[in-house]
Order: sequence, then structure tokens, then C-alpha cells
Amino acid sequence: MGQQPDVSPLAPAEFPEMAAVDGVSISTAAVAMKYVGRDDVLLVQMPEGTTVAGTLTRSKTCSAPVDWCRKNLVQGEARGLIVNAGNANAFTGAAGMVAVENCVEAVADQIACRPSRVFAASTGVIGEALPFDIMLDALPAAFQAMAPSDSDSWRRAAGAILTTDTFAKGATATTQIGGTEIHISGIAKGSGMIAPDMATMLSFIFTDAKIPADVLRAIVGPGVEKSYNAITVDSDTSTSDTVLVFATGAADGQIEISGVDDPALDDFKAKLDTVMLDLAHQIVRDGEGASKFISITVNGAEDDRAARTIGLAIANSPLVKTAIAGEDANWGRIVMAVGKSGEHADRDKLGIRMGGIEIASGGVAVEGYDETPVAEHVRGQDVDIEVDVGVGQGSATVWTCDLTHGYISINADYRS
Amino acid sequence: MGQQPDVSPLAPAEFPEMAAVDGVSISTAAVAMKYVGRDDVLLVQMPEGTTVAGTLTRSKTCSAPVDWCRKNLVQGEARGLIVNAGNANAFTGAAGMVAVENCVEAVADQIACRPSRVFAASTGVIGEALPFDIMLDALPAAFQAMAPSDSDSWRRAAGAILTTDTFAKGATATTQIGGTEIHISGIAKGSGMIAPDMATMLSFIFTDAKIPADVLRAIVGPGVEKSYNAITVDSDTSTSDTVLVFATGAADGQIEISGVDDPALDDFKAKLDTVMLDLAHQIVRDGEGASKFISITVNGAEDDRAARTIGLAIANSPLVKTAIAGEDANWGRIVMAVGKSGEHADRDKLGIRMGGIEIASGGVAVEGYDETPVAEHVRGQDVDIEVDVGVGQGSATVWTCDLTHGYISINADYRS
Repeated sequence: MGQQPDVSPLAPAEFPEMAAVDGVSISTAAVAMKYVGRDDVLLVQMPEGTTVAGTLTRSKTCSAPVDWCRKNLVQGEARGLIVNAGNANAFTGAAGMVAVENCVEAVADQIACRPSRVFAASTGVIGEALPFDIMLDALPAAFQAMAPSDSDSWRRAAGAILTTDTFAKGATATTQIGGTEIHISGIAKGSGMIAPDMATMLSFIFTDAKIPADVLRAIVGPGVEKSYNAITVDSDTSTSDTVLVFATGAADGQIEISGVDDPALDDFKAKLDTVMLDLAHQIVRDGEGASKFISITVNGAEDDRAARTIGLAIANSPLVKTAIAGEDANWGRIVMAVGKSGEHADRDKLGIRMGGIEIASGGVAVEGYDETPVAEHVRGQDVDIEVDVGVGQGSATVWTCDLTHGYISINADYRS
Repeated sequence: MGQQPDVSPLAPAEFPEMAAVDGVSISTAAVAMKYVGRDDVLLVQMPEGTTVAGTLTRSKTCSAPVDWCRKNLVQGEARGLIVNAGNANAFTGAAGMVAVENCVEAVADQIACRPSRVFAASTGVIGEALPFDIMLDALPAAFQAMAPSDSDSWRRAAGAILTTDTFAKGATATTQIGGTEIHISGIAKGSGMIAPDMATMLSFIFTDAKIPADVLRAIVGPGVEKSYNAITVDSDTSTSDTVLVFATGAADGQIEISGVDDPALDDFKAKLDTVMLDLAHQIVRDGEGASKFISITVNGAEDDRAARTIGLAIANSPLVKTAIAGEDANWGRIVMAVGKSGEHADRDKLGIRMGGIEIASGGVAVEGYDETPVAEHVRGQDVDIEVDVGVGQGSATVWTCDLTHGYISINADYRS
């Protein structure tokens, strides 16, 4: 088999030059919980008035920090964030929540805020008690080193939350709300999963816009659906998936927002969507063993939700993913995946395109179908699949990677 | 990678000695639709009074023969069966049903029965028109060679329906109904899937019991749930999956059955379940690249349906399947899969056993957990997983195989 590549072949050329976000201070620390010779704890401090919205894993076996975040997202205010890499604090029984409470209380002491304003996330091994004492020991020095966010600290922040990722993931944007310059900077980790770690996706986005919690919630929810919830590497759902968006309101001279439909927010929403989508795509580009980035657009479904379900059925099909890994323009497997999704599809109106080239239409292969240009497209690094299921107006795009020997090697060949 | 093994390492030692079933005549033919130098068409003739019940794929893009069977299962009578290997007659538009009708009408002519009493199944390439003329040409000679079922013809029947399977699959049983000796013999194919073929599962079971169609239906439905619908190789659903059970009523001197709950049927039901489960297990044992046979039992679920859903979530998890391929007793991935199933599970009561050894209980790893005996179990060819999700009385067992480099090689490395 040979060794896996150090960095995914689909990785961006470099980590972006990230915008400073007013009000966000960052510190990282190395406690060697599992990874040695690198930072493995991220601490973020934010000013009073910071709002937060987020989305958490739907797993029924979710981790203790996910339980903590779910409870405290309700009130919508944040002052701090603590993240560790190397131990997921999942399936740790009652001790799991004790560990979370010890961590957030210690951070709250440093910031002088309520513990409920401190959010937490953990990623790594599951089923082992979180050794939180070594994190607590590191906190005073880490808070002394706390400094306003800048290009360098964003890079360190993105690095401190990685587990088996092959590259650090960041995305940034600048926009305006009512004439004030607003910054958005976000980081993410996923989906490296070496036994017994899992496909944990963590993503934290920060902006200095001043946005009420209910408005932020109304913006973040649909954005997550179109980005983080529209990607898949191998259909497995982590116990720890967490996306949090923090708005410090610290950019000078901001207007009051009237509500989620305030036109002053239009460009902000678009830019936030772009940052979320960029980070989500980077997670797919770091999919284990990935050699192709696959975009799947479904049109003509009953509604957008149905379109996304059909898209994910195609994206999660091992037969579709292995065909693309083998550079095989095997559209029969796409037909199969549409059929198994359970959503309404008109077999006799089904249309399929790959790389923009029509393959099937009206439920049959097009007359004189020539595979040559499609085969050429599939040999590239980016593969585009379009399906029309012929029943309505719903549409969605989802993203995934191929399923290769690299995936098996990462997940089966090397013991934890 | 090296070549795939000729025969799955999980295959039974030999094809069983199958019981003759009164009233069932068998013929096979070679039309070289795709496979050369072997039989690729199966014809079965049955006497008047034969009843039939079955289960067909839920795929929304099902094949034309599946549509045909669905329509004609309603009336519950059968006289003939025609099956071809090499072309699935799926995604073939209106021409697909024309091909089916041509085939069943030609068989009906030979048998002198209504076309609606002839059932059909196809497996192989999808999206290509079925060249039914070469099948029609072969029919007269094949019907001349038609002979009562016996050990040899069962073997040929099982061989004629294979596509990329590595071994022929048969199972047989003898029972009594009201003092009359009754025979049950069944064959199956699946789940070899070489591009662009798919995981098509076909299974045909024949008995000489005399069972009204509604009773047969009431017996076959639950049996399929516990066998064919409780196995998975890679979560992909074929456009062509078909299970048909035919009862000729030809065994001499049978009693009248009063209904599905008639105690005279007890042993028959048990034996039929055994045959169906045996065939379903053989399909898993021929899973592409399979090196381990995995049994997953879920207890403590809300109901049996929920238990099966949780079991299939574990069975379909690429992370669980690759861990077992790597002989890694990675129970954290089982926790993850339980969580993602969407069914109710009490994280803090969750219990896990592998090979009968307790790993976790009450939502945490057992005190002083020693992986040694579990690791030893996972190195064997048969791996047993038991999960208790702690919310109710529902239970189910499902079966799958591991996910290996062999699967990737079969599905990605070799172009169609």
C-alpha cells in the first residue's frame, strides 16, 4: 500500500491570511494529552455582549461538552471557549460532565464571568476519562499569554484543534454592515479518523459584528444546512460535531440591526455563508484517503430537503465513491443511489450529467452516448454530478470525496 | 494489491445436497448475454395450483422485471420463472417492460398458461437494453430439456443466476405438514458487484407444500425481515432485489391448512426461516472483499424495528467495518454508530460485548477492561457484537461483513 501522503492532495495551497476580529483574544497551550510537541488546547476570550449561535451533533451518544453547549446555547451569550484535542470526553459517564464543569469554571474564573458563558468542545479518543487536571494547570499561563486575534494566532488556533487532519483549516472574509467594516474569521477540524478517533467536525467562527442572539441563530441555522450539513466523507456521524458562531459586536460604530431580514445584513450573510462553505469544503478535502472532490447537484426533487437526501444518498454510496476513485464514469450506480434514497423520483424522467455532459435523460441513456468526454472529466481531481429526478422544483448541492485504498489503510491497517 | 481470491474465504465447504421438490422442473441455458462458457438463463416450470409470495426492492428506480413481479404477485399464482444473468434490464425506459413481456409471453406459450403466471428477474449491467431475442431463441430447446428438480439441476440453477459471485448458493430442508413429507429447496445470488453491476440479491425458494397464497404471504413477509432484510454488505440497495417463494402443493396426500396460525405449519415455518437465513448468510459470506462474518445483536431497544435500525447502523458504518477488517476491537466506533442511528438509546445505560466479553456497561467502559480476550476474538473469522441500548424490550440480529482493501479493489481498481 505504501504510506499515506503527509498532506491531502486536495488541500488548499496555503493557510489563508486571516482577518483580526475585534474583541477576540486567543491563546493556545500544549498539555500533551495525546499529541506531543504541538499545541492541543485552544482558549478564546470575548467581551461582554458577545452573542453565540450554533449547531450540535444529533448523535444519541453525544459527548459531555456537546450536552454542555446545547444547554447553554439557549441563553445566547458567550465570553469564552475552551477546546482540547486528543480526548473526546465522550462515553465517559457522569465523570464526563464533571470534567466539563471543572474546565469551564476555571476559564470563567480567569475571565471573571459566569461558567454558563464558557463553551467547550473536545475531540479525540472516546471512552477514556478526560485528564482535565493537566488542562487546569495550564490555564493561568495560557491566559497570561492571551492576545488579540491576528494572522499568527489564527494559524495557531487552527492548529491546536487538529487530530488526524493533514492540514489546518481557516477561512476569512471582510464585509460591511451599515458602513462599518466587519470581519469574519473561522477555523475548523475534520475529518481525519484514526482508530479510535472519529470523524469529529469542529468549527468555530468569530465576527465583530453586533448581532442579537436570535438574529444570529436565524442566520446560522440555514447556513449550516447548506454547508456543514451538506458534506459527508463516509456517512458516519461523530458524537462531538460542533459548529459555533460568535459575534463580539466589538467593531466600532455599528448600527442596530432591526431583525434577520434587515437589508444591512445582506452582504454579511452572504460572506458568512461563504466562510462556512469554504471550511466545510476543506473538511471534505481532508477526507481520509480522498483523491477526488465530488460535487453533487440534485434538481427536480419534491423540495429542497428531498433533494439534499437524494444528494447524500449518492454521496454516501460506497459503490458511487469507489467508481469515482477508479475513474469509472459508472452512472448506473448513480441511478441505484437515487433509487435507494427513499425520496420520490420519477425513474422514467431521470436525467444524469457528469462534468456538464448529458448521459441519461427521460429515464434512458441518451442516444449514441459517448463515454469519452465523461471519462476524461472523471480523471480530473474535481468531479461534478448533476441529477434531475423529474418530480418538482426542489434542489440542493452536496459535497463528498471518493472512497479509496487510502481510507481502508487509515482505518484498518494501522492499529490504535 | 494482488488479485482477489477466486472463492470467498467465508464460503461454505461445498454446495449442499439439495432435496427434489415435487412439481418443480428446471432447465438452464447458455445464451452468452455477457458471460461466456456457462449457463446464464434459468427456467422453472411449476404445476397448476402453485402459489407464490415475495418481497421486492424498495428502490424508486427499480427494474422492469421488478415492476412485473410486483404487479403479478397480487394474484398469488405461478406457473413459471425466467431469470437471466448479465443484464439487469434496469433503467431501460419503456423498452424494459417490452422485453419482460416478450420473455414471459414466450415462456407462457411453452407452459400453456397466462403470462401473468410467469415471474421474471434479471441481474447484471444496468442501462443497456435487454437482448431478449437471444433468450427467446433458446427457449424451445431449453423447455425440451426441462426435467424434475434434483440435486444436479439445483446446482445448475444456482450457477445460472450468478454474476460476480464467487460461489453458488443453495439451502435445503425437509419437514412435515400433517404427516406428509415436505421439501424446501432454495437458491440465491449476491452480492458481487463489479462495475457496472450492482449488489443485486436474487433468491428463489421452492416447496412442494400446499399453502394458500395469503398464508404463504403471511409466512414469507416476516421471514424476509429476519433474514434477507437483516443483512447488508455496503448499504447499497439494488434496483433488482427479488425474493420469491413458490409452493407447488405437489407433495402427495396433504391436509388443508386452516390459516397462518395452523399448528401443522409450525415446523414448516421454522424450516423455511432456516433456509432463508442460510441463503442470506451465504450472500454476506460472498460480500465483496469480505474476510470476516459479523453478527450484531441489539437488545433493549424501543421495539424490534428500532433494534434492527440500530443494528444496521452499526453494520453499515464504514468505521466499524474497517476496524474489524483491521482486527481492532474498537468499541468507540460502535458507540458512534448507535448514536447516529436516530433511534432512541440511553447513552448512560449503553452496554457493549464482543465475543461474549463485557466491554462497556452503564455508559462507561467496565472497570479494569482488558482488551486481550476481545482482541483475540476479533482476530477470528466470526465476530460477534452485542449492544444493549437500555430503553426497552426490542431486539434484533443483523449480519454483515468487514470492509477491506478487497472491496476497493473489486469496485474501483478494475474498470468495467
